[in-house]
Amino acid sequence: MEFGLIERIRARVAPRDDVVLGIGDDAALLQPPPGAQLAVATDTLNVGVHFPPGTAAADIGWKALAVNLSDLAAMGAEPAWCTLSLSLPEPDPSWLDGFLDGFLDLAARHRIALVGGDTTRGPLSVCVTVHGLVAPGRALRRDGAVAGDDIWVSGGLGDAAAALALLQAADEPVVVACEAGPLLAADPDGGSGRLASLRPRLDRPTPRVELGLQLAGMAHAAIDISDGLIADLGHICQASRLAADVEVDRLPCSPALAASFEAERRRELQATGGDDYELCFTAAPAMRERIEALATGVVPVTRVGRMVEGEGVRAVDGDGAPWQPRQSGYVHFSG
Amino acid sequence: MEFGLIERIRARVAPRDDVVLGIGDDAALLQPPPGAQLAVATDTLNVGVHFPPGTAAADIGWKALAVNLSDLAAMGAEPAWCTLSLSLPEPDPSWLDGFLDGFLDLAARHRIALVGGDTTRGPLSVCVTVHGLVAPGRALRRDGAVAGDDIWVSGGLGDAAAALALLQAADEPVVVACEAGPLLAADPDGGSGRLASLRPRLDRPTPRVELGLQLAGMAHAAIDISDGLIADLGHICQASRLAADVEVDRLPCSPALAASFEAERRRELQATGGDDYELCFTAAPAMRERIEALATGVVPVTRVGRMVEGEGVRAVDGDGAPWQPRQSGYVHFSG
Repeated sequence: MEFGLIERIRARVAPRDDVVLGIGDDAALLQPPPGAQLAVATDTLNVGVHFPPGTAAADIGWKALAVNLSDLAAMGAEPAWCTLSLSLPEPDPSWLDGFLDGFLDLAARHRIALVGGDTTRGPLSVCVTVHGLVAPGRALRRDGAVAGDDIWVSGGLGDAAAALALLQAADEPVVVACEAGPLLAADPDGGSGRLASLRPRLDRPTPRVELGLQLAGMAHAAIDISDGLIADLGHICQASRLAADVEVDRLPCSPALAASFEAERRRELQATGGDDYELCFTAAPAMRERIEALATGVVPVTRVGRMVEGEGVRAVDGDGAPWQPRQSGYVHFSG
Repeated sequence: MEFGLIERIRARVAPRDDVVLGIGDDAALLQPPPGAQLAVATDTLNVGVHFPPGTAAADIGWKALAVNLSDLAAMGAEPAWCTLSLSLPEPDPSWLDGFLDGFLDLAARHRIALVGGDTTRGPLSVCVTVHGLVAPGRALRRDGAVAGDDIWVSGGLGDAAAALALLQAADEPVVVACEAGPLLAADPDGGSGRLASLRPRLDRPTPRVELGLQLAGMAHAAIDISDGLIADLGHICQASRLAADVEVDRLPCSPALAASFEAERRRELQATGGDDYELCFTAAPAMRERIEALATGVVPVTRVGRMVEGEGVRAVDGDGAPWQPRQSGYVHFSG
């Protein structure tokens, strides 16, 4: 059941030379460049699980694509094409327009073409599949870490989880419109602005696509942080059959986060909070200068630890004492 | 939230030489053959919309892949890879095992590799994206029909809609297990066996992949029948800027359908019933013998009309009189 919304989508989609046939047939036809490998990822966002009911349509559109682009970033792949499967409780052209505002804004920034999909009736749910291109041998995999590698993270950690914690501390889901500008006008947080400054990091994560492209062929392993640093770095450890030593006091912290939580709670948010969609990657120590140079002007990167023999992620505080979060797994929004 | 179900899936997936990296990283890495075009389609099935609550897990798995393979069939593309995004109300390994029984059974028949995806919490929903390969210029598009073309359909029409009508005529959704064998043992239909013989066509449609491959480069246009012949042939008309004349009395009918409904109701089911996933295609009259020959041993094909100048689908009965269904749009199951 396609509600006649397909035409509404097709009218707004940007072209791309390698799209032989886009939206409107049984399948899209795409022409990959000679020799390239395809990186393919898919992720679904469900209302009440991955975003609160009442989240602005444009933010849902942005985030649904962002979490998928983040997977391409973590592979070092160049975004090319995506499909969108949208389940809606009822056809709602104005909601769809808002959704497309966010989705296509982000798509344009990364020149990824929306080439197909479907719309069906059902509880609000967005399934996106992305296709990226990467030269053979250059993809950033989870299983390539080497003992002695530095562990790096991009941007700041914990902001998205902090926003979620603030939202959940409120009695009811908080609806903040943030389609176009700063959130302060709609700040429900009594003037402190804490939620206002952190919530865009939850609703509008920035996929680190450019950083991933720069790191391809140089970093040894990478993953994007969707479930929290400790959990996601654990996947690199498992795939690479190594352990990771992480200094929690070195985890990068935004000014907004620093101003919002006391130190111990903040460390927990940084080490275990998900939804930041920063990259965690490992690379040889000999690469430190090159990595810092390539990240300049893209996104700050921070060394936070080292890959070693063994298994699992071991966190220590500034004094070298073992540090443990009170809860190790990040739980996405659940209404 | 991945419930630890991913490993359960990975353990059962068959390999394929062109899968460089399968399930378990941020994205799959795939190596397309030189020069090939990719055909990409995605379709979601939601509980209560596309299948009744209580449908056997294996049937849901089968159908979720089948409707997507049907899109590749309609393009004349060879199935290669797929991803699966599964939303489940709760982690349920035995349900997942059943789902995979159906999904992977069909996948093996078409040598399509499951290369990635995600599992999330939410109302039961299955989003599958399929990737097929097709040589440039050979894909079957909707916009290639030529005035004078014959219109063909594969298999029989109306069986799936007939099963749905019988289900809906019952007071409550009927749960019929049909994972392994005939349905007669569970026949809720009072011994007539009508539903029992028709329901597999609703729950376990056969994607006409082999037929599509045979037709690639020869048929002018094709579509799969998911929303009913008249609606779907209408898409070919629109894309090709032509009209279609269809003789409803020539629409192919299974013995089970013929035995179950009087003529007028049967015609409606055949002309407007969806979910059959047969192919509708157009080809030059000069191709009749070749088409009948290539379909031999694959699936029966039937000529049902002709593409002409104009717009829209015009149906006539056996006497040449205009024929109209009482309702023109097929509505999928809705609980």
